[in-house]
Amino acid sequence: MSALVFESLLSTPEMIEVFSETAVVQAMLDFEAALARAQSDEGVIPPTAGPAIVGVCKSELYDLRSLVGASARAGSLAIPLVKKLTETVALFDADAAGYVHWGSASQDAVDTAMVLCLRRALALLDRDLTTLTAALLTLAQRHREAPVLGRTLMQPAQVLSVDFKLAGWIAPLVRSQQRLRAAGAAALRLQLGGAVGTLAAMGEKAPAVVQRVAQSLQIATAPAAWHTQRDELVSLACEVGVLTGTLGKIAKDVSLMAQGEIGEMSEPSGGGGRGGSSAMPHKRNPVAAMIALAASLRVPHRVSALLAAMAQEHERGLGNWQAELAEVAGLFIAAHGAVKALADVAGGLQVDTPRMRRNIDGQQGLVFAEAVAILFARRIGKARAHGLLEQLSQQAVASGRHLRELTLEACASDDTLRGHFSADDVAGLFDADGAARHASALAAPQLESLAQTAASLAQRPPWAAWLETKEV
Amino acid sequence: MSALVFESLLSTPEMIEVFSETAVVQAMLDFEAALARAQSDEGVIPPTAGPAIVGVCKSELYDLRSLVGASARAGSLAIPLVKKLTETVALFDADAAGYVHWGSASQDAVDTAMVLCLRRALALLDRDLTTLTAALLTLAQRHREAPVLGRTLMQPAQVLSVDFKLAGWIAPLVRSQQRLRAAGAAALRLQLGGAVGTLAAMGEKAPAVVQRVAQSLQIATAPAAWHTQRDELVSLACEVGVLTGTLGKIAKDVSLMAQGEIGEMSEPSGGGGRGGSSAMPHKRNPVAAMIALAASLRVPHRVSALLAAMAQEHERGLGNWQAELAEVAGLFIAAHGAVKALADVAGGLQVDTPRMRRNIDGQQGLVFAEAVAILFARRIGKARAHGLLEQLSQQAVASGRHLRELTLEACASDDTLRGHFSADDVAGLFDADGAARHASALAAPQLESLAQTAASLAQRPPWAAWLETKEV
Amino acid sequence: MSALVFESLLSTPEMIEVFSETAVVQAMLDFEAALARAQSDEGVIPPTAGPAIVGVCKSELYDLRSLVGASARAGSLAIPLVKKLTETVALFDADAAGYVHWGSASQDAVDTAMVLCLRRALALLDRDLTTLTAALLTLAQRHREAPVLGRTLMQPAQVLSVDFKLAGWIAPLVRSQQRLRAAGAAALRLQLGGAVGTLAAMGEKAPAVVQRVAQSLQIATAPAAWHTQRDELVSLACEVGVLTGTLGKIAKDVSLMAQGEIGEMSEPSGGGGRGGSSAMPHKRNPVAAMIALAASLRVPHRVSALLAAMAQEHERGLGNWQAELAEVAGLFIAAHGAVKALADVAGGLQVDTPRMRRNIDGQQGLVFAEAVAILFARRIGKARAHGLLEQLSQQAVASGRHLRELTLEACASDDTLRGHFSADDVAGLFDADGAARHASALAAPQLESLAQTAASLAQRPPWAAWLETKEV
Amino acid sequence: MSALVFESLLSTPEMIEVFSETAVVQAMLDFEAALARAQSDEGVIPPTAGPAIVGVCKSELYDLRSLVGASARAGSLAIPLVKKLTETVALFDADAAGYVHWGSASQDAVDTAMVLCLRRALALLDRDLTTLTAALLTLAQRHREAPVLGRTLMQPAQVLSVDFKLAGWIAPLVRSQQRLRAAGAAALRLQLGGAVGTLAAMGEKAPAVVQRVAQSLQIATAPAAWHTQRDELVSLACEVGVLTGTLGKIAKDVSLMAQGEIGEMSEPSGGGGRGGSSAMPHKRNPVAAMIALAASLRVPHRVSALLAAMAQEHERGLGNWQAELAEVAGLFIAAHGAVKALADVAGGLQVDTPRMRRNIDGQQGLVFAEAVAILFARRIGKARAHGLLEQLSQQAVASGRHLRELTLEACASDDTLRGHFSADDVAGLFDADGAARHASALAAPQLESLAQTAASLAQRPPWAAWLETKEV
Repeated sequence: MSALVFESLLSTPEMIEVFSETAVVQAMLDFEAALARAQSDEGVIPPTAGPAIVGVCKSELYDLRSLVGASARAGSLAIPLVKKLTETVALFDADAAGYVHWGSASQDAVDTAMVLCLRRALALLDRDLTTLTAALLTLAQRHREAPVLGRTLMQPAQVLSVDFKLAGWIAPLVRSQQRLRAAGAAALRLQLGGAVGTLAAMGEKAPAVVQRVAQSLQIATAPAAWHTQRDELVSLACEVGVLTGTLGKIAKDVSLMAQGEIGEMSEPSGGGGRGGSSAMPHKRNPVAAMIALAASLRVPHRVSALLAAMAQEHERGLGNWQAELAEVAGLFIAAHGAVKALADVAGGLQVDTPRMRRNIDGQQGLVFAEAVAILFARRIGKARAHGLLEQLSQQAVASGRHLRELTLEACASDDTLRGHFSADDVAGLFDADGAARHASALAAPQLESLAQTAASLAQRPPWAAWLETKEV
Repeated sequence: MSALVFESLLSTPEMIEVFSETAVVQAMLDFEAALARAQSDEGVIPPTAGPAIVGVCKSELYDLRSLVGASARAGSLAIPLVKKLTETVALFDADAAGYVHWGSASQDAVDTAMVLCLRRALALLDRDLTTLTAALLTLAQRHREAPVLGRTLMQPAQVLSVDFKLAGWIAPLVRSQQRLRAAGAAALRLQLGGAVGTLAAMGEKAPAVVQRVAQSLQIATAPAAWHTQRDELVSLACEVGVLTGTLGKIAKDVSLMAQGEIGEMSEPSGGGGRGGSSAMPHKRNPVAAMIALAASLRVPHRVSALLAAMAQEHERGLGNWQAELAEVAGLFIAAHGAVKALADVAGGLQVDTPRMRRNIDGQQGLVFAEAVAILFARRIGKARAHGLLEQLSQQAVASGRHLRELTLEACASDDTLRGHFSADDVAGLFDADGAARHASALAAPQLESLAQTAASLAQRPPWAAWLETKEV
Repeated sequence: MSALVFESLLSTPEMIEVFSETAVVQAMLDFEAALARAQSDEGVIPPTAGPAIVGVCKSELYDLRSLVGASARAGSLAIPLVKKLTETVALFDADAAGYVHWGSASQDAVDTAMVLCLRRALALLDRDLTTLTAALLTLAQRHREAPVLGRTLMQPAQVLSVDFKLAGWIAPLVRSQQRLRAAGAAALRLQLGGAVGTLAAMGEKAPAVVQRVAQSLQIATAPAAWHTQRDELVSLACEVGVLTGTLGKIAKDVSLMAQGEIGEMSEPSGGGGRGGSSAMPHKRNPVAAMIALAASLRVPHRVSALLAAMAQEHERGLGNWQAELAEVAGLFIAAHGAVKALADVAGGLQVDTPRMRRNIDGQQGLVFAEAVAILFARRIGKARAHGLLEQLSQQAVASGRHLRELTLEACASDDTLRGHFSADDVAGLFDADGAARHASALAAPQLESLAQTAASLAQRPPWAAWLETKEV
Repeated sequence: MSALVFESLLSTPEMIEVFSETAVVQAMLDFEAALARAQSDEGVIPPTAGPAIVGVCKSELYDLRSLVGASARAGSLAIPLVKKLTETVALFDADAAGYVHWGSASQDAVDTAMVLCLRRALALLDRDLTTLTAALLTLAQRHREAPVLGRTLMQPAQVLSVDFKLAGWIAPLVRSQQRLRAAGAAALRLQLGGAVGTLAAMGEKAPAVVQRVAQSLQIATAPAAWHTQRDELVSLACEVGVLTGTLGKIAKDVSLMAQGEIGEMSEPSGGGGRGGSSAMPHKRNPVAAMIALAASLRVPHRVSALLAAMAQEHERGLGNWQAELAEVAGLFIAAHGAVKALADVAGGLQVDTPRMRRNIDGQQGLVFAEAVAILFARRIGKARAHGLLEQLSQQAVASGRHLRELTLEACASDDTLRGHFSADDVAGLFDADGAARHASALAAPQLESLAQTAASLAQRPPWAAWLETKEV
């Protein structure tokens, strides 16, 4: 693990490992190995050079600390690595040493390594998205038709159902998973262009070498070197940003419902110190929501940094490319913290449906005011009905009485209303269960469709293989 | 035109018009009209109410200034608009007035209006992208195989061709156009959910009303109200951000090549004061690049604001939704300035190929150093060859002599090289035209494919119809 | 008023007016007038030229719409304005026309105009900060020692007092006002450097002209032209960002306390449609908090855009300066919306102290768990005490009983505790009033000091004069 | 060293060390030690407890890896650390163990630790700013009156002097150093408030304990706990952002002047692989500029993240505080990379004054067009003069002739000009040395004043002591 302490707290060891010195250097060596092998096979370099180079493309042979140190002076990790790799090959085969990194640019090695790392990073996001979505679908199934306050502008508004509410969390997660797969497929491509993208040093053999390297690394080729065409990479990063936005929305809702005074939802306490307080014995802090909210605060700024770095000069940029590399890693590190935190607790989220009902009851019927207004509007017009209910709502708040009673009284004392609506008609509007059933019925087909899509996504995750194996 | 003065300078009257008070209010009225008509047709409101409402859904009937003023107090533009609309309907049909905005939420009207505006905004971006891409493709065709310095890390690197360089500008533009269309198709959907997304007030008829409203406005329906599911909208915004990043990259290259000391490219002077200076008679400032660079500086921060606004609370957010509306408009306003500025000048970009050649010549052969190193490497190994050429390059810089001459001398005086390479072999490496031909050949199939895609995109622009007509 | 509709909703007519076409153009004309007058007085231009130019430096003489239109082509508002001004002078005095904008650069006129606008913008922020702070100080005075739940990580934590809580809002506001004044004094300086900052065209007279222009416009001079030294301007912008962050914090707290289920604070309803809902008669939305939250979401991205624009090339930048102008205006427009919205409601904020007490009571004593743990720790060690209280807290939640009763029972049944603590000792810890008094006593000296500072700031607002007069 | 590989490349080992696990944990232990000692001295805890706790507040006693791992579950680094510390104290003194972290909150420990780290971070920035400024002042002294092209909108504009240009780099650096010291002094304060800021658990003794802890750690006290008052910290961060913006501006200028085709400035090659290329032997990449540019791209987004995190809820925030900690560290890590990179090369920056002169000459006199226009304007009016010079400039560009010759011809052939200006008058305007002398004279007093301020700042660096010692 090698991130900074406050980054670590908000991420996962797995994702930090993906962008660790070891992993990045090994991915660069994988590129150099694949390149050398392909060039030997195509006769660009001698047949023995390839195997000689491949043999020492193992990160454990190198002093990573000193490589990283040297990279700051050189302005690139590739320069000292290629130097060390060349020296190491020369220990065994002086001739072959001359063919290390042949015809390639520093950025080829680094960008391709980044693509190899991102493949694992996306697999991790995808894996935990699947877990999170499945857990939320189960939760929705479990709490079908359970009434809960709908809230708008942070005020109680009307009643809906728990599954309706959860559908609004799940749908954007499923869409994100789909968009991430599409964006990943577009962005994760071999970088191999040589100094200025023309692969000049490989002459006629260039296209064949490119094909072989891509095949060896099991990544797609690109129509051209993308040294300063960063659109697909940044588009992928944007989708990570959008996903994190949705995770932030879910975490915001959880944190609001978990407030002590509302108490409708709580994270599983889990034990092991989860969510405790160093000062206050009674505290159960929503730690997963905390991590997701932190990510949703940080990630937008990673995305904007990546967008801002796109104006890369000419054939390879100065500063902007280097900035991008650091930001991309930081983006995934933050985002995975959020996905994993929510995925870990989603299955155990405690939904307190009795409390939800008590909270509805605590609203003294106010959240049914629109329903009454709509009923009365047919008789006295919407403007007057809306005004009457505003007035009755204020009375309810001031007096502590239930809007139903006040409404029945108004109905009885108002000449235009009296006789037009039975007490049962009016009282029947104050029906949390009915509102929840209506919402649940509306959400049902969408939830079914989401469940099918999620199941289908779970069956063929595109980069899952790369969670197991790390080497070429 | 109603944006701020320094925004206007960096945008276009057309795009500012898209988000003007008049346009937004008319789009909201279009929503209200479509809703009323659909509800009358479905029997949700009386048959005469719909037509009565539709009849006054014309923005010219309302005092927009006072509406906007009232919206700040109300916290929403919809609230005073619905009030005024209701009053206006009542002038003609008191009964119908009660059915204005029936069962709908403020956010339904505003989000749908925003979608109607975005449809036009996307059409404008798409139209000018087509122009820009076509102009660049023509330019690439015109300057096939013309040698130009490739530059990396802001230093001369190797030689490539103008069409190869332009392919690197065009490809991400074409991809952006494709991704924008896909993202637009996903995001531009009817918003209609009522207070908390359940359409409670329309009961059983809700789905049918939704279908009719969508059909009437010619927009797609969504699987559910997306009051706090902003992922598709923000994903679209991200793509606008990525596009602007590519425009910034192009503008950066133009501005660097347009430097007086480099002089390889210049914007058309055009007349009418384009690019002049109030102080300096000799100045020809690259104004289109300036506008695109300004957009590429500003737009990433619009995107991050939109991502940051995604954590919207519960069923409708407090502050974050309102922030999003302002930022979305600002995003398109800035982005279109960039597309239009570059589209306007792309056809007239002056490419000074003789100057490009002189700039190559001015490099004293240094940009062919890698080619020589690769040749020598086969004899003396890459490390020694690289080192030798570093040394010769330094001599060339110090002495002002051409690297070719120094190389030939080195070849003659070095025991391991002498006799292995003819002077012609060596001299032949210093071949700008050869390098350009190689690059051009590499780019040719990609350019052909891009031309086909661009032509196909030009034939069926998805939102073009909305540039002509504004009303339902 | 000339901002976009969704910007307007989140800002104020006053601030939008500060950056309106009319105001900006008039400020540029003020600069040109001051320059011409100074140059005539110093003999740089003929004595009659100055007055002739001054005479037509009135924005009402010009077609602002066409000026702004032309500015996009020119890349600067100054270029068409100088042209029109020159033509207008020529109508009366052909000779004098030749001396318009003499020796000055476009950026001189625009930057100085921006400084003149910012002077008014800061005066508005300062004025409303004074109002807001005073209202909150009054509120703190009114609710001294009133107990309220302190909440951490969005969970009830311990009891504090309303005035203690308000001190935490007021202190950063007062500090912001102080820092804004300091940053404004540093940044608001004359820009006058000519083409590249050397004032070459004015020769020896340059310093004297600079002094006269600054005096005429009543702004400070700078040690040098700051065409590409934007540090002081951006530092000022940062302070606006920090202020908005504090406003966001206040609004967040208000919105959380205003939740229907918590009900501790509400914005004044005011009437005139404030905070109503188009659908729900019972709603009272916290509109001022909404506007401040929206600003706190948007403003950080304005600040980062300004920081990102700082790398301006050489003597005057390409694109980054132009981006900065648009962002600076947008920053103040968003920030003032927040200050004004909160200043407007702060005096009328309804603090429901009985509800605050009920919310404390609703916590079943849990928020006193730390106090009990500390008492017991002296007998049984902190770890065991903390563990015991964790356990008792869980029992309280599970059983619905009060922690006081459970604690008394534990005390009686535990061998190490029994006899060491009287029931009165233990029960006395569950004392909301005591906790509030303690907090209030802690806050009292700080509040007194803040009140004095605020009063002193209110007495000498630095730019207040510019709220009245707009012209030189 | 424990940052991610692509972060490391753009930072320094020193700054990464400041925020390393070891350093942060030790700083937290320093806080706990100071607290325990103060509480023993004040009689809040037993007299022996303090020394017992102090004795084990050594980071080398703890398994940092497992602490960081546990922190993610707990949501805070303080919780597992306090637990381990308590256990460790208990090994020696079971009683004392109960008084670890007495009356304090997690955030007290973490915020104070962050302040202790920031003290060192600021000392590093300050130290290297002093070096950078001194080197640039020397450079300015060395190249007084050397003519160089002034450039605006990335086009050659007029001639100025190297020292004038450098003054424009130095002045904002000196101002930043001053503002950073002021902001640091305001922000670096003890955090000690207990659970909700009221220090309830320490009762009457609280103020005395606060004083002692602050004294022990040699940091200032704050008027109140600032758990959710982040304005001073974020204001400090903003100043780091502004500094980085200025560094980006300097690096941008260096990179533009270092372009091969311009060649006016180059970074010292230094050896050790600095700025080489893995592919191209001739390359000398401006690596320091690259690092500073990367920082200037990344840092604005750290600042906006910090601003966005300011709306922290109630007495301690959920997610936003945690996000802030990670972003603050990342901000300083990126910024120091930039300062150090430029400080390392500034002394060795190679300024090629002959090349600067050749670049001026290469402009064919165009950059003196304004001077000629001003001369002629006195005779034929500015508009006509400007127009004439525009025309002559175009002729110069088209024909390759020098503007001086064309001007002399125009002067001779134009009836209104002929006889009014001698050839010597006209030719004398094309005087690069004169323009440079003028610029240099203008800059001289400012440079002298900057040198004095810089010298004075170098004499009393506020946090320098903390570069040596790390412990209490």
